[in-house]
Amino acid sequence: MSTLSEIILKGGAGSFVDCKVDRAFAHDGTGIQALVALRGLGDVKPACPEKVSVIYDHIAPANNTTTANLQHELREFSKQAGFCFHDIGDGICHQIMSEGVCLPGEVVVGADSHSCTLGAFGAFATGVGASDMAAIWASGETWFKVPETIEINLDGDFRQFCEPKDLALTYVKKLGMDGATYKALEFTGEGAVNVPMDGRLTLCNMAIETGAKTGLFYPDAVTKEYLAGFGHSIKTAKPEECSYEKTVDIDIGDLEPVLAVPHRVDTVEPVTRYSGTPLDQVFLGTCTNGRYEDLKRFADIVRGRKVSVRTIVVPASRAVLMQALKTGVLSDIIDAGCSIGTPGCGPCLGAHMGVLGEGEVGLSTANRNFKNRMGVGAEYYLCSPSTAAASAVRGEITSPEEFA
Amino acid sequence: MSTLSEIILKGGAGSFVDCKVDRAFAHDGTGIQALVALRGLGDVKPACPEKVSVIYDHIAPANNTTTANLQHELREFSKQAGFCFHDIGDGICHQIMSEGVCLPGEVVVGADSHSCTLGAFGAFATGVGASDMAAIWASGETWFKVPETIEINLDGDFRQFCEPKDLALTYVKKLGMDGATYKALEFTGEGAVNVPMDGRLTLCNMAIETGAKTGLFYPDAVTKEYLAGFGHSIKTAKPEECSYEKTVDIDIGDLEPVLAVPHRVDTVEPVTRYSGTPLDQVFLGTCTNGRYEDLKRFADIVRGRKVSVRTIVVPASRAVLMQALKTGVLSDIIDAGCSIGTPGCGPCLGAHMGVLGEGEVGLSTANRNFKNRMGVGAEYYLCSPSTAAASAVRGEITSPEEFA
Repeated sequence: MSTLSEIILKGGAGSFVDCKVDRAFAHDGTGIQALVALRGLGDVKPACPEKVSVIYDHIAPANNTTTANLQHELREFSKQAGFCFHDIGDGICHQIMSEGVCLPGEVVVGADSHSCTLGAFGAFATGVGASDMAAIWASGETWFKVPETIEINLDGDFRQFCEPKDLALTYVKKLGMDGATYKALEFTGEGAVNVPMDGRLTLCNMAIETGAKTGLFYPDAVTKEYLAGFGHSIKTAKPEECSYEKTVDIDIGDLEPVLAVPHRVDTVEPVTRYSGTPLDQVFLGTCTNGRYEDLKRFADIVRGRKVSVRTIVVPASRAVLMQALKTGVLSDIIDAGCSIGTPGCGPCLGAHMGVLGEGEVGLSTANRNFKNRMGVGAEYYLCSPSTAAASAVRGEITSPEEFA
Repeated sequence: MSTLSEIILKGGAGSFVDCKVDRAFAHDGTGIQALVALRGLGDVKPACPEKVSVIYDHIAPANNTTTANLQHELREFSKQAGFCFHDIGDGICHQIMSEGVCLPGEVVVGADSHSCTLGAFGAFATGVGASDMAAIWASGETWFKVPETIEINLDGDFRQFCEPKDLALTYVKKLGMDGATYKALEFTGEGAVNVPMDGRLTLCNMAIETGAKTGLFYPDAVTKEYLAGFGHSIKTAKPEECSYEKTVDIDIGDLEPVLAVPHRVDTVEPVTRYSGTPLDQVFLGTCTNGRYEDLKRFADIVRGRKVSVRTIVVPASRAVLMQALKTGVLSDIIDAGCSIGTPGCGPCLGAHMGVLGEGEVGLSTANRNFKNRMGVGAEYYLCSPSTAAASAVRGEITSPEEFA
């Protein structure tokens, strides 16, 4: 009678556990910090290099000499250490780890706050600091305080243009930005099966926006089918009767297209309340909404139309880019006048590309709209891919339901 | 009995002429400087806004708030002024101007040194400074000293893997980096017809690397066919018997794959002399070699293979990207493990993406390998698309002839 986190971590909520790490990953930003910390531990060799991935996504390709130097150093080390190394252009770390790498029941740590994304497979996946990552590289182990769990009990099914991102923003609003600090979120209920794998990744990705340690889906038929595509055969599991700290009920059928309004992720309002707000830039991508299904949702609206504001589309990985290419989705997006970027984090972190100017207003499918994040003095609204598409076509905030 | 420059500019070599400008263009880097200069002229409105293009290519998308602010200012002005405005993702200014905009016999000025590229159509096309561009925006006119002309007399035809870029580097070597200062280069001879339009653009593009004011091809059947694709019907023209300052004879059939060795464009050596030099990065793109035919040359070698060094491919324009997508060339390039960037200048200027680290060695299809240009303390070799492809596959400098 345990939560999924308790089962995976083998301990009751509140207890401290030591555990082997099944997968550990870092990106160009945190990986170099982990390397510095590792060297601080003395002459230590990584314990289980085959479990470690280093993936360049945050500033890809390098934007200046300093970045290039740091990337060079970590690249050389990763290759020598026998890490699984992904250079610029392969994609976002969370996305790559979701493409047949992470499996149900695993303990997954990433040196990035959105590592909770991988909980979508029924793994215990969470973000750690770079110095923690160094210790994990050195020992292959780590420790956790097993979190209490909040249940997100889903019912119903998605209406057209009301998407997993709308569900994600809706639960973040309900919990608030500090509503689940150090808790796990378990997505359960009759409605869970109606959330496709890309949507589960979106939902678990945003768990951290409530302060949660992770978000988890039980591995079910959807998980099984998805991972079968990567040659994995998994066992499914169902929620047991267990003790949740609290339960939040959401009927997916009641959702409407929503926005996170500047500058908080939990200030979530209906899109229609902001209809007509002029935009300077629209951005589709990130570990939240840069998957193939997101690009397809976007393409389904822009196909045969032209965007009337500068629009940047960044596929979450090489595989996403290839699938979009082969299905015609990429062609539709480019034909509509969008600008395609190198698979990676793109403008999300405001570090190297797609930065907004002062006073500019952007719409983004990312997970954070903190003040100055994507451009000093700019404003960013967060939304679903369909809302992004409808708004890109009009050049102003627009509900996708206007394109029904 | 005049050179093509004399015919277009309506004056003898050495004379000063005033002339109407047919096409004027600037990019994000120089356009904002031209705008500042224009404002310095007082309350002046652009004389012929329909002849002006502003094209964002140098830092696209914006890399930081400062860039975003400047781009915002120029974007707003361009739209209000009625300029033809191309936002990020449309491509490189010279490429966009070559896609059915510039025509034979025109006077074309661009606020970029490689504006000589458009001489490929038999236009007098040259680079001007940003303050000159402001005066041209204000008046629609400019003046030139009509240049003397050096003839590049071509014979023969291309052998496999010996490409227009090899021809370009070869003539730059023959003339030297200051061998044609303020001259025009006319590409003539029996061999000229064997240079396809993309190759003519490559050859004229590099005229400035000899100090030349411009490079020109006479509009012939090749030109006529290319421009017919954009709905233009043009008259062809042939070289008259005229007085060239000197003639450089090149037999295209004698070419071999060559490199411009760090740090000068005119230090040109056979690729085979540097075979085996380890590489950190390969870059295919730019106004020199980012066209569809260049991507196809590259794909023809990497198809079914994997690159073994990080490789960045940046199509020169949206149209190039779309053509590569529709023909499968893009798919081949991505499948081979290359990273695709937003159409634009990409790493060429070392300003915002694909910058090399200290001590790193790069291979590039660009036109300049000046010290520190693409990364402080890095070394860059310049080459053809096929040499880039062969070297990307091997991870070291490799002649494409090894893939015959």
